[in-house]
Amino acid sequence: MAVTSPLKPEDEMLNWGRLILDGVSYSDMVGARDRPGDVTWFDYWMNLASEYESEAERKVALGHTLSAGEFLMSASLCAQYAQFLWFDERRQKGQARKVELYQKAAPLLSPPAERHELVVDGIPMPVYVRFPDGPGPHPAVIMLGGLESTKEESYQMENLVLARGMATATFDGPGQGEMFEHKRLSGDYEKYTSAVVDLLIGLERVRPDAIGVLGRSLGGNYALKSAACEPRLAACISWGGFSDLDYWDLETPLTKESWKYVSKVDTLEEAREHVHAALETRHVLKNLACPTYILHGVHDEVPLSFVDTILDLVAPEILTLVVEKDGDHCCHNLGLRPRLEMADWLQDVLVNGKAPIPTTIGFDHHD
Amino acid sequence: MAVTSPLKPEDEMLNWGRLILDGVSYSDMVGARDRPGDVTWFDYWMNLASEYESEAERKVALGHTLSAGEFLMSASLCAQYAQFLWFDERRQKGQARKVELYQKAAPLLSPPAERHELVVDGIPMPVYVRFPDGPGPHPAVIMLGGLESTKEESYQMENLVLARGMATATFDGPGQGEMFEHKRLSGDYEKYTSAVVDLLIGLERVRPDAIGVLGRSLGGNYALKSAACEPRLAACISWGGFSDLDYWDLETPLTKESWKYVSKVDTLEEAREHVHAALETRHVLKNLACPTYILHGVHDEVPLSFVDTILDLVAPEILTLVVEKDGDHCCHNLGLRPRLEMADWLQDVLVNGKAPIPTTIGFDHHD
Repeated sequence: MAVTSPLKPEDEMLNWGRLILDGVSYSDMVGARDRPGDVTWFDYWMNLASEYESEAERKVALGHTLSAGEFLMSASLCAQYAQFLWFDERRQKGQARKVELYQKAAPLLSPPAERHELVVDGIPMPVYVRFPDGPGPHPAVIMLGGLESTKEESYQMENLVLARGMATATFDGPGQGEMFEHKRLSGDYEKYTSAVVDLLIGLERVRPDAIGVLGRSLGGNYALKSAACEPRLAACISWGGFSDLDYWDLETPLTKESWKYVSKVDTLEEAREHVHAALETRHVLKNLACPTYILHGVHDEVPLSFVDTILDLVAPEILTLVVEKDGDHCCHNLGLRPRLEMADWLQDVLVNGKAPIPTTIGFDHHD
Repeated sequence: MAVTSPLKPEDEMLNWGRLILDGVSYSDMVGARDRPGDVTWFDYWMNLASEYESEAERKVALGHTLSAGEFLMSASLCAQYAQFLWFDERRQKGQARKVELYQKAAPLLSPPAERHELVVDGIPMPVYVRFPDGPGPHPAVIMLGGLESTKEESYQMENLVLARGMATATFDGPGQGEMFEHKRLSGDYEKYTSAVVDLLIGLERVRPDAIGVLGRSLGGNYALKSAACEPRLAACISWGGFSDLDYWDLETPLTKESWKYVSKVDTLEEAREHVHAALETRHVLKNLACPTYILHGVHDEVPLSFVDTILDLVAPEILTLVVEKDGDHCCHNLGLRPRLEMADWLQDVLVNGKAPIPTTIGFDHHD
């Protein structure tokens, strides 16, 4: 089912800053905007994915694996942004291509991403793990995707975490990426996070006492619930997340369609009911015991009442609350700064064992 | 003397792709475009430089030197792009700030930039050297700035070279950055390149037989002449360079003002004569003996006749000629791909000792 809209897809895109910060080339974004009238958004990005793949194959043949990895990562991101606004056959076509291209990129990334083939409740669940320099054991951060983002898209954020001496782990949970065909969005995401904790604890190069979780957007909801339900998690970041979906009516039409799609239901009303039940976390937030970092932008469509909920339910001594007065959803519009802040906080908590400093930061370009 | 123009500075900027690829934040560029009407371009960027500097100081106090280095590097770039379109008091104010901020960033970069205080013919000439992982000795690449770019701006390209196992060295020559007050643009840039070769050969961690030079824009002209005159250089890249200034009349008004400024003359006619004499390389190009890589964009204001000159004067067995049919000046509009290509070529020649492959590459997003 296609969503009809008077807007061109690029106008509906939540945030060009997101694409840039996640690694999409500015020149490719300009190319998408200025593409010929007979080339669709989907085809533009899918063709570009294939061109990057060809470049990567040429680079592999010449022994230039670093560049090959970069090109395949770019290709995978192109496939992601080809599909992410539609719910018809383009969706699965783009998703499958993204998965395929990332899998080719994984061993060529620096550091490489090791693929572990988990099976949880009979469902195959590949997990990618990347390690920083040195023999370890290292702290590790499990990174959670969101409503339409998946394990393939956290590459740039992973690099910031890796540079600070922590391993990273990514996977798709219910309703996401490779798991979507097996399981829709559900109220038990934390079970899958815990399966990754099991995996990491079994790896010699990981410090079992220093495993954190970081989730973005919907992943920030999953991160809160995962950390509340899993005592082995030693740090939690909710990056543009939310505690509940009481604010359904504030969601954009496209986002509501997206909720319906990942819920595998026929109507928006069913979607509303399903996600409202599945994404409730308030009953467990009081169980949060590890250092917890909340990043929220005042201009996010997630209402500011979320901050009140957090202040009500999370113990102040474990809470670092960052509310950016100029920030949009996930603060993608603020550049690298909020990401560096999160990476440094993880380093403080997981690498250096420091107690987190409660802070509210942000600076205004026009002061 | 201020240049008056009906265009806003951001319209005159050669290429936003350049800013992004050199490390300016997309969000800061958007902020510059959308800044309040009473904030000048210069003040916007200079204020932002100070804000990044404050963030860096906060990070240093917290022990987060990696982020501090990033913020100071961002601050230095902000100061660069504050001043780069003017030739009045803003010019030296912005330049001085850029130098100061980069000097603070240098020890915090990853890997750090070591400052060496050379003096050449009585002129102080600081050189920054960065080394890749491992004890070495490593090949090294001397990077040359251009008409208004300096040793502080090649950070992102340095990182690509470092990741491939080569050290980097940067400095300001006649007419550039810190040397401008002591010496205007002159016909002997190669003397200063050779002084850096002397320095590098004296460093234990550098392989004296594997030192290359890479210059961008006007630096691409200097690179050609440096390599033609300095037999110890083992590789040369001219990135958006030129062999001569026969095409003066094709230059934009702002670029002509810039030539006049760095020549320290009073009229455009004097500037034309001075740079025409100083930047002639055709008489020495036949002496080029090391592998030489030329990157040229068909849409560069440097005319395509430059390619004919290269084909006439440079021996085919040492030449890799890359002409990008969609490329603008320095091919900044093509994203990371041309930069990866140059970094890989340097790796082939300097690290792996491979003979360069003559190639002409490029792909079209709309094929």
